[in-house]
Amino acid sequence: MERYAIIVAGGKGLRMGSELPKQFIDINGKPVLMRTLETFVAADASIKLILVLPKDHQPFWQSLCEKHHFNEPHTIASGGPTRFHSVRNGLNSVPPCVDEALVAVHDGVRPFVAPEVIDRCFAEAETYGAVVPVVEVVETLRQLDDRSAEIGLRQAASHTVNRSLYRLVQTPQTFRLSLLRKAYMQEYNELFTDDASVVETLGHDITLVEGNRENIKITTPFDLAVAKSLTSKPEA
Amino acid sequence: MERYAIIVAGGKGLRMGSELPKQFIDINGKPVLMRTLETFVAADASIKLILVLPKDHQPFWQSLCEKHHFNEPHTIASGGPTRFHSVRNGLNSVPPCVDEALVAVHDGVRPFVAPEVIDRCFAEAETYGAVVPVVEVVETLRQLDDRSAEIGLRQAASHTVNRSLYRLVQTPQTFRLSLLRKAYMQEYNELFTDDASVVETLGHDITLVEGNRENIKITTPFDLAVAKSLTSKPEA
Repeated sequence: MERYAIIVAGGKGLRMGSELPKQFIDINGKPVLMRTLETFVAADASIKLILVLPKDHQPFWQSLCEKHHFNEPHTIASGGPTRFHSVRNGLNSVPPCVDEALVAVHDGVRPFVAPEVIDRCFAEAETYGAVVPVVEVVETLRQLDDRSAEIGLRQAASHTVNRSLYRLVQTPQTFRLSLLRKAYMQEYNELFTDDASVVETLGHDITLVEGNRENIKITTPFDLAVAKSLTSKPEA
Repeated sequence: MERYAIIVAGGKGLRMGSELPKQFIDINGKPVLMRTLETFVAADASIKLILVLPKDHQPFWQSLCEKHHFNEPHTIASGGPTRFHSVRNGLNSVPPCVDEALVAVHDGVRPFVAPEVIDRCFAEAETYGAVVPVVEVVETLRQLDDRSAEIGLRQAASHTVNRSLYRLVQTPQTFRLSLLRKAYMQEYNELFTDDASVVETLGHDITLVEGNRENIKITTPFDLAVAKSLTSKPEA
């Protein structure tokens, strides 16, 4: 079955004086987002790449592609006001004549997803329809009382929960095209925190598969430091 | 009030052919555990350090101290069969004549705790009695059905939970000495997953304070790579 990957790199604008969005930051000679696209090509060169970028980031991305001689074919779609709208725009770039296909939706700032995780997500989505990669929670996990937001952390009641019953969700969240199209025809709802939640609202079960620990979402300076260490050459 | 820190570095033995425990691994010129002790000294040089090490690790630790000219004063206590027993042994190294003091219990493989987090834990423990540092969950969090352990990840039912109501627990977990002594007089129970859970069993509330994201527990090769990046000099 044909495989598509929608790489979502929405987020803040490129106004003067604002920080460079993480997806464009150079780590060891190459922008984060370029690394992400290359990881999908490395996993399976036949995957069709759809990159979702805010309109005002697109000329900058083109200049980065020229500078780095980046030639992997990819379609560009425009970002929307929320991640939901961005993914929907990306999904509309799959030609309407295509009925049967698999679609992975992936964060542009996750360049370290393992190629075997990408492959596992596509393979299982063909069977189950809706697949997300997850990893175990390695720290002790506490749940706060519902009122914690009002009363603040120090006063909040909390209790330890059984962390073996929880999983941290990564991307690529991968779906049968027909299911994802149906899900994204729904009206936007602020409870849609990820693609799985959009699909779940239709009543479709989500299948969990093993992700990889290195598949971090680069959002803070700490994550960037980690990313640099993951891309530097191993010591001699 | 006097401040003690029990640094727990129990875990596997040093049998021939087994991997070097993470606390002894060198990161950029210094063993992990030495960095952890130095972080406490940097936070407050008056903190009394108690290091808990399995008996058969102690000569190796001494040799590391000589090699690295490590001169910070610290008491050594012997590790027990579980973390609970190790902490209890460390606690028994606080002189019985000391009544009022604060005790931080910290993982030996967490060298990157921020000095201000150490200080915050001690300061709040003086007021509240029992304090643990926590950080927010940055990924989407799913909870598995209770039966997931039997039926496996792929077949498990799961649902997204509100991640803002959860926190990941770090160390140093910090307590008033009298409270911690009372807690560790209890019989061992396998539900004791951390020091907070031992104290909670007495019916004492746990106060949460902000930890720091970099305060990772070094347990996997990935964590070690991250640790190396956090200790290397910033780029010129």
